[in-house]
Amino acid sequence: KRRYTITLLPGDGIGPEVISVAKNVLNLTGSLEGIEFGFKEMPMGGAALDLTGVPLPEETLSTAKQSDAVLLGAIGGYKWDKNEKHLKPETGLLQLREGLKVFANLRPASVLPQLVDASTLKKEVAEGVDLMVVRELTGGIYFGKPRGFGMNENGEEIGFNTEIYATYEIDRIARVAFETARKRRGKLCSVDKANVLEASMFWRKRVMAIALEYPDVELTHMYVDNAAMQLVRNPKQFDTIVTNNIFGDILSDEASMITGSIGMLPSASLGEAGPGLFEPIHGSAPDIAGQDKANPLATILSAAMLLKYGLGEEEAALRIETAVLDTLSRGFRTGDIYSGENKLVGCKEMGDEVLKSI
Amino acid sequence: KRRYTITLLPGDGIGPEVISVAKNVLNLTGSLEGIEFGFKEMPMGGAALDLTGVPLPEETLSTAKQSDAVLLGAIGGYKWDKNEKHLKPETGLLQLREGLKVFANLRPASVLPQLVDASTLKKEVAEGVDLMVVRELTGGIYFGKPRGFGMNENGEEIGFNTEIYATYEIDRIARVAFETARKRRGKLCSVDKANVLEASMFWRKRVMAIALEYPDVELTHMYVDNAAMQLVRNPKQFDTIVTNNIFGDILSDEASMITGSIGMLPSASLGEAGPGLFEPIHGSAPDIAGQDKANPLATILSAAMLLKYGLGEEEAALRIETAVLDTLSRGFRTGDIYSGENKLVGCKEMGDEVLKSI
Ligand SMILES: CC(C)[C@H](C(=O)O)[C@@H](O)C(=O)O
Ligand SMILES: CC(C)[C@H](C(=O)O)[C@@H](O)C(=O)O
Repeated sequence: KRRYTITLLPGDGIGPEVISVAKNVLNLTGSLEGIEFGFKEMPMGGAALDLTGVPLPEETLSTAKQSDAVLLGAIGGYKWDKNEKHLKPETGLLQLREGLKVFANLRPASVLPQLVDASTLKKEVAEGVDLMVVRELTGGIYFGKPRGFGMNENGEEIGFNTEIYATYEIDRIARVAFETARKRRGKLCSVDKANVLEASMFWRKRVMAIALEYPDVELTHMYVDNAAMQLVRNPKQFDTIVTNNIFGDILSDEASMITGSIGMLPSASLGEAGPGLFEPIHGSAPDIAGQDKANPLATILSAAMLLKYGLGEEEAALRIETAVLDTLSRGFRTGDIYSGENKLVGCKEMGDEVLKSI
Repeated sequence: KRRYTITLLPGDGIGPEVISVAKNVLNLTGSLEGIEFGFKEMPMGGAALDLTGVPLPEETLSTAKQSDAVLLGAIGGYKWDKNEKHLKPETGLLQLREGLKVFANLRPASVLPQLVDASTLKKEVAEGVDLMVVRELTGGIYFGKPRGFGMNENGEEIGFNTEIYATYEIDRIARVAFETARKRRGKLCSVDKANVLEASMFWRKRVMAIALEYPDVELTHMYVDNAAMQLVRNPKQFDTIVTNNIFGDILSDEASMITGSIGMLPSASLGEAGPGLFEPIHGSAPDIAGQDKANPLATILSAAMLLKYGLGEEEAALRIETAVLDTLSRGFRTGDIYSGENKLVGCKEMGDEVLKSI
């Protein structure tokens, strides 16, 4: 029997509900695939702020580091919105990414045949979309220094940040992206703003250098403003997209909305070694928290990514993915993807149906 | 008779074609409204590079500065794509914006009833969209220093830029945005990334300070990743959006693609004093240049913005806008907005039909 330790970070809002469902899914899948999971649940985000005064307690980070993979629910909520920066739930998430050194954020966005109507895009535009955004996650303007507040030479107040990338940071994310594209349809689009920013010119130069190692992958480059347009015009043109931290934040959210089913989308954040971080891309949805209305499928699919990318358990991952598709085909829908003709269920019941399908 | 000097910058690709049509439209409108235009045509972008070796010759900038308004076609093309940064057509555009000190970029994106089918969004989502992006244009990461290439403490190559805003820069763009919102539906959404970036926290603080001068305008704040999603999910929720240079670059292009008719969209760039810069938001489209296929309506509507925002000639502006709508209602379409049922025309013929409508 294979044994893994998983750190669960339920977090805030609907986080605990979706994590509890995903845990059951992992347990059942494990028992069928000969895998045993040891779960450690730790506080993080607003929940940790309330409990310990900081958004990422040291013990949470060290537990996460010592485990084989980390599954996060969601963080944040109105309650902590006005907090100072170092006391925001979001800061805990950035510290977790930095602490786990998970520099590569994989965000798939595909339109499932069962859910094509959920997209605000016309059917013929949305149908068949299947792309992956590979976002650099621990560098760029999110972490660049100098940053802060100050005064300029005219005695005026300023706020400033630094967008900065070094060779190794670009090289390693480019390699992840090329490897990802190779396993998909062999097309990689690198998104930058190289007509204006030096950081982007350097990005493009390094991506082109790494491309020599992957002659089988077709590399193109696109400016970020154009990419934002092309995602709306014809999202099907994309296979794998690689981009920096801030552009990836924007474009991956845009891409996920194009699928129309944010409640369905998982993500994986991977480092060079050590545990990966897996989380649904949706937020903590404080307005529906505790009402058993949340869609647990994004977290269940994040658990599948955890198995595949985090533990190399591809069969177990496939079992979960197939079960999710089967559950959708059997007509079960949570409120966010309900369109009138199907069976409306809550978070727990959706989880139970996935368990049945497994 | 009112007299104005207009600098025309045809630029590259389809630029000369659309500028020539817009010039005729301005002349006819002027003769009907008692306005006389003196036009000065100057080289800019790739055309200027070929002629003079720089993308914005001094004479072009000084002519532009001395005129009452500047109308630009489009710049750029494959030919100059590999040029070094200071020899790129785009650099000429940035120098022109900086030289004219046009810090406020107004980019309307509305879905005309005649063209609702052109959008890739479902009819019920696209129909009625009418928003305005107010983008800061002469600050932020586009112009921030330090910038460049170098080495970090580990001897690794780096590329870097600085996102930076000072009080006066935010205050003046915020005022333009509040004034704009006041003349529209009274709703302003400020877009930033204040959960991560100090430059954005400072942006938000100043926008909130300026809001006190505009108690009649309803101000909201949105993170840029969420804004990129909301534009796809429900663009109708927006009236006026204000944001920094780079986020504005991305979001205004996304918003324009949502209308489905990029060939229709004008823009205005305004300073505190001095001539404004008016240009269609589409590019130079080198693939169709010189083939009389370009849609001149974006440039014609830019000429209308020139009259309204640049010269205060509101009636003349309205005359042009009405003529464009009338031409569309009469069924004339260039290739980019043609959907099979209407009269397909080229650039010149479209211009002639607008002249008839005027
Ligand atoms: C919460 C926030 C700090 C975070 C980010 O900007 O990275 C989020 O938007 C995301 O994409 O995971
Ligand atoms: C050509 C480029 C420098 C420019 C910009 O990024 O501002 C363009 O994308 C625009 O939006 O006008």
